[in-house]
Amino acid sequence: MNEATQRTELSALGEFGLIDHLTANIELKNSSSKKGVGDDAAVIDHQGLQTLVSVDLLVEGVHFDMTYTPLKHLGYKAAVVNFSDIAAMNGKPTQMIVGLAVSNRFSLEAIDEIYSGMLQACQKYGVDLVGGDTTSSKAGLFISITVIGEAKAEDICYRSGAAEHDLLCVSGNLGGAYMGLLLLEREKAVYKANPDMQPDLVGYDYVLQRQLKPEARFDVLHKLRDAGIKPTSMIDISDGLASEILHLCRQSGLGCQIYEEKIPLDPDTLRVAEEFKIVPAVAALNGGEDYELLFTIKQTDFERIANIHEVRVIGHMTANLGIATMVTPDNQAISIKAQGWDAILNKE
Amino acid sequence: MNEATQRTELSALGEFGLIDHLTANIELKNSSSKKGVGDDAAVIDHQGLQTLVSVDLLVEGVHFDMTYTPLKHLGYKAAVVNFSDIAAMNGKPTQMIVGLAVSNRFSLEAIDEIYSGMLQACQKYGVDLVGGDTTSSKAGLFISITVIGEAKAEDICYRSGAAEHDLLCVSGNLGGAYMGLLLLEREKAVYKANPDMQPDLVGYDYVLQRQLKPEARFDVLHKLRDAGIKPTSMIDISDGLASEILHLCRQSGLGCQIYEEKIPLDPDTLRVAEEFKIVPAVAALNGGEDYELLFTIKQTDFERIANIHEVRVIGHMTANLGIATMVTPDNQAISIKAQGWDAILNKE
Repeated sequence: MNEATQRTELSALGEFGLIDHLTANIELKNSSSKKGVGDDAAVIDHQGLQTLVSVDLLVEGVHFDMTYTPLKHLGYKAAVVNFSDIAAMNGKPTQMIVGLAVSNRFSLEAIDEIYSGMLQACQKYGVDLVGGDTTSSKAGLFISITVIGEAKAEDICYRSGAAEHDLLCVSGNLGGAYMGLLLLEREKAVYKANPDMQPDLVGYDYVLQRQLKPEARFDVLHKLRDAGIKPTSMIDISDGLASEILHLCRQSGLGCQIYEEKIPLDPDTLRVAEEFKIVPAVAALNGGEDYELLFTIKQTDFERIANIHEVRVIGHMTANLGIATMVTPDNQAISIKAQGWDAILNKE
Repeated sequence: MNEATQRTELSALGEFGLIDHLTANIELKNSSSKKGVGDDAAVIDHQGLQTLVSVDLLVEGVHFDMTYTPLKHLGYKAAVVNFSDIAAMNGKPTQMIVGLAVSNRFSLEAIDEIYSGMLQACQKYGVDLVGGDTTSSKAGLFISITVIGEAKAEDICYRSGAAEHDLLCVSGNLGGAYMGLLLLEREKAVYKANPDMQPDLVGYDYVLQRQLKPEARFDVLHKLRDAGIKPTSMIDISDGLASEILHLCRQSGLGCQIYEEKIPLDPDTLRVAEEFKIVPAVAALNGGEDYELLFTIKQTDFERIANIHEVRVIGHMTANLGIATMVTPDNQAISIKAQGWDAILNKE
């Protein structure tokens, strides 16, 4: 279902041919991109700015399932989740380098689809694709993305900068990407049981888009900047709110208290959660892949943040090192544990 | 044979535990390393210098064979071959970011071995390990290395800078890594046929070291600098002399002529090549993984290069675009074709 109709074997092109093919349409837009693909290393000139670098691996069968992930979306998402890491530092992504390891199950057309998604993301976010490494694998698809970004030293937001009483904020809404994943898994199971059944995805656009085509929240960073707010600490929500909250607490040497009813949830997420009999807050806490921003601000910025409708204050930082609690609507205090990554490792 | 005696399941540590464990002994040494592991991105400050970035993927079963590659050597080599990419730009590597995808076949001790090799390489070459991403894979080990380096704009050597009549030079000697590989493959076959047989590797130290523990030639760069020579173009020899020569020719819009008898070969390489009935020049041209430097210099630098005993002039650049020829000792002209990577793709 992901294969394009034409199929060109990679071995028919050879190294030069494949590199030429993949890089033919790449244009450099950032003045800091001195040299892109085609040499041993990319050359980046960041006069007076600090360079940010982030690497993410995406592994078939772990981070994505080829049976329901369109390759173009996969490329787009692979790029965007890395841009989101730069957003989480309050920086601007400028260059990207792609590593692809593909088995001979993949054709040139399949790799083109992945690249076209990546280039679309680069276009949208103003990032230059400046290099890469493409190789074969014995089985499966592995994507390694390196993103370079820049920021003024004084603008960078680390995870460790939160202070006691700072307000904990979330952009957008949470849990939607996880509900999209559950939906795709359900339709996959239906398809496996009866290949004649067509997937029933009508009316689920929002949660599917959250799962398959996430965006990085630079729009929120711009609004914060316009409002004169610099987060004291920041992280992006890739593994679920619970895990990210614990990162901020631990690295800032603090604890926190959040309120379940303040966790932002989209009506579509609530509807699908109900259909799947999932507590929506659990999807938000442990689902992951929402790529929203979690950050802290000074209490004195409360008035200013209230005017940014994409941001919700969900709690505050406390002095209880490493202890994060969530207060439920009936006033119970629940201890927040991380689950995202451990669950993945144990699932194998 | 690569497993350490103790075995700790990765799932027993969880994400925080594994990250803490892997990063506990990392110290930052470069003043440009503002922030290392533990945030969404590393922060690098390169005031007035240009930033170089290179990414390489290493895939189990394609780039290395776990049956005869000690994990520590694997980590060391994975790092060094990336430093070599920065050397090939005439830069200095400063930071490294590691991506590891491992199946649950690997224990914590196995990952420790890989990391210890990487850290040993970082120590030797003065590079800071500033971040990474560790995830699970369904099968096999995938390593993604991103190396950041720096150089003054005027010092950088691109592949495209060669001019007609420039002299083509090679550092060290070639073909040894390939003979080491053939030797390891032979002993693997012997062991598979009879597991009681011990591998017979005595007296093969040099070619084994060339295969398992290559080094990047910054020593040669220093000698060139001391001699006042700046290469007009440069590349490192990872895929074999043939492939790299064609890169320089193509990207400089030129051709070249080299002389078979000038290709530097070590006596140990010659001896093992004879044992395996391989023409030594073929090992040099198509074997790869020597990580020596291939570069061009102006003819006026000939006297100066003659005093650097690690470097050999093997030919010169011509105006015949894309045509590389090798003159044999009996004065025949052979056309040079690339084989390294195509061969890998077809082998699958």
